[in-house]
Amino acid sequence: MENKRVAYLVLRVLLAQPLSYWQLLKHIDVDLPTTQKSLKNLLEEGLIDYKDNLFFLTPKGEKTAKLLGISPFSSLICPECQGKTVSLAHHQALLNEFTEIIQGRPQAISEYDQGYVTPVDTVARVLFMYQVGDIEGKEIILLGDDDLTSLALLVSGWPKRVTVLEIDERILAFIERIATIKGWDNIDLIHYDARYPVSDELKGKFDVFLTDPVETIGGLRLFFSRCVEALRGEGCVGYFGLTHLEASRKKWRQIQQDILAMGFTITDIVRNFHTYLLEREDVVKLELRVAKEAPVKVEFPEIDFYTSNLYRIYAVETPQPLVKGKVDWERELYYDEEAYVTCP
Amino acid sequence: MENKRVAYLVLRVLLAQPLSYWQLLKHIDVDLPTTQKSLKNLLEEGLIDYKDNLFFLTPKGEKTAKLLGISPFSSLICPECQGKTVSLAHHQALLNEFTEIIQGRPQAISEYDQGYVTPVDTVARVLFMYQVGDIEGKEIILLGDDDLTSLALLVSGWPKRVTVLEIDERILAFIERIATIKGWDNIDLIHYDARYPVSDELKGKFDVFLTDPVETIGGLRLFFSRCVEALRGEGCVGYFGLTHLEASRKKWRQIQQDILAMGFTITDIVRNFHTYLLEREDVVKLELRVAKEAPVKVEFPEIDFYTSNLYRIYAVETPQPLVKGKVDWERELYYDEEAYVTCP
Repeated sequence: MENKRVAYLVLRVLLAQPLSYWQLLKHIDVDLPTTQKSLKNLLEEGLIDYKDNLFFLTPKGEKTAKLLGISPFSSLICPECQGKTVSLAHHQALLNEFTEIIQGRPQAISEYDQGYVTPVDTVARVLFMYQVGDIEGKEIILLGDDDLTSLALLVSGWPKRVTVLEIDERILAFIERIATIKGWDNIDLIHYDARYPVSDELKGKFDVFLTDPVETIGGLRLFFSRCVEALRGEGCVGYFGLTHLEASRKKWRQIQQDILAMGFTITDIVRNFHTYLLEREDVVKLELRVAKEAPVKVEFPEIDFYTSNLYRIYAVETPQPLVKGKVDWERELYYDEEAYVTCP
Repeated sequence: MENKRVAYLVLRVLLAQPLSYWQLLKHIDVDLPTTQKSLKNLLEEGLIDYKDNLFFLTPKGEKTAKLLGISPFSSLICPECQGKTVSLAHHQALLNEFTEIIQGRPQAISEYDQGYVTPVDTVARVLFMYQVGDIEGKEIILLGDDDLTSLALLVSGWPKRVTVLEIDERILAFIERIATIKGWDNIDLIHYDARYPVSDELKGKFDVFLTDPVETIGGLRLFFSRCVEALRGEGCVGYFGLTHLEASRKKWRQIQQDILAMGFTITDIVRNFHTYLLEREDVVKLELRVAKEAPVKVEFPEIDFYTSNLYRIYAVETPQPLVKGKVDWERELYYDEEAYVTCP
């Protein structure tokens, strides 16, 4: 049934202009398997066509769009904040310093499902947290920090203390080096594999968690559970990103059921808050399903097509982890039938 | 426990400047009963004081704020879109025409829990729906239309058809008069009391619903259930507003559980999207609890302090109503122990 939505969104954007596969994906808030199937249908039905790496509407497609009451799409996203709700205007110095210190950051390893968000988005996330009142004087834990948000937090000077749990030693070493140069002593760096429980000295110690979880149901459940054990209790909050590309709306519902079951309520969902700087050539070379199973032959992405939504959740009672103890998961932690931009 | 959050938010805004009770409320995303209790505590503990209608920090309060690592709050909300994510810049004509045609609208009756959002917010909501792809060519049903969103939708020219269910005959008559003058024939106006089921000819006919429900659990469940029966099925969407003033985060969680149970997922929550133009003097004269139970003697509100968050929900399966058939509810439909801006 989501096919109908994909068709609707495709018709209205192509009515405005021809677009590459990657550009088109940015306009569709539906999971990739469904989107690919729907594009295939639209091609077969002769509503759209593909030439020189561009999708465009056929005369039949234009007629159908008109019958459906659709006009050429023109985005109304706020040009100032790009739909993030907070403005960076008064914090250019924060952005500049963050951008400067992350020069030389470890390259993302696509095979490990890494890929970080733009520096602007990382800083915007920090500003969003400030706006809502979740940073100043707070003890913050990050489970995974590809994005180096810990450094943006420390540049801001707002948090009381920042703790990073991360499996990639390169990232830990990089953060440590910058923190040493800057003389920041309110950061803790811990080598950590989410399959193991968090250590006792971390339990019940934090006001806020941040994580950018793998997008399988089990993976999310595991990441949230680990974060939850680190929180102090009622009134604590969590932030994370969730895509619609690799998480269908059905999966969203299951994830939301988990969130509520753990004792949280969802207070904010900001659409397309984050854009990821994936290794563009890897997307095609590694034969990720987003490229390999596209209904047309696609080139390397010419834009950053991968986005996610920002969630904030709030514990209305003592939050409870859904997963406890060690787990033995391997690949299934990262990979499910919707993981189309993840290495199989 | 939310007291701690109120204290935190109060300290950071008063550190920046003294504020009236009504201005202060705008900075606190916590329910009114908790906020009032917390303000009382802060006064008793000598952290804040109140004089000439302004709350301000005492030296003890300033010291405490410093100890907590709090600095004077400066809002980072985007000045262009006011945090609504969409820009009105290219649709000034829509705003102008809407503002013009609603001149002479029926006055909100505070005793009936009426009170409409600003024209800018009503138009912004229409633009948000356009952006996400929920208007053009769609059949849209509104359960209650104090805000006259139906007219904003029709001015836009985007929907296929708009149906308004409304209990207040004055509002129906006003919309009808404008539609007649404008020559709009794609609108249906139906006198309707939500305690009764929607009629059979409305069932399963709509793509999108909009409602601004009363904020009791039962009331929300009833309003959603009626809207759900009017939807076509999977892939349909709903929009509504929810405050944090009259709905605690605990209540948010219950409401979200209901939303998921009905077959939806929540796709967007935009904070403080709507500001309401309540009858300011009525708030005090009618002895609403927000004024009557304030910890200090308050004047008539000098600003529009009442805001709500915009929700979008998406049906991942055929949505199911939680309430069916006629209900006999009277006052309990409108009123619960968190209803502080509602007539008892």
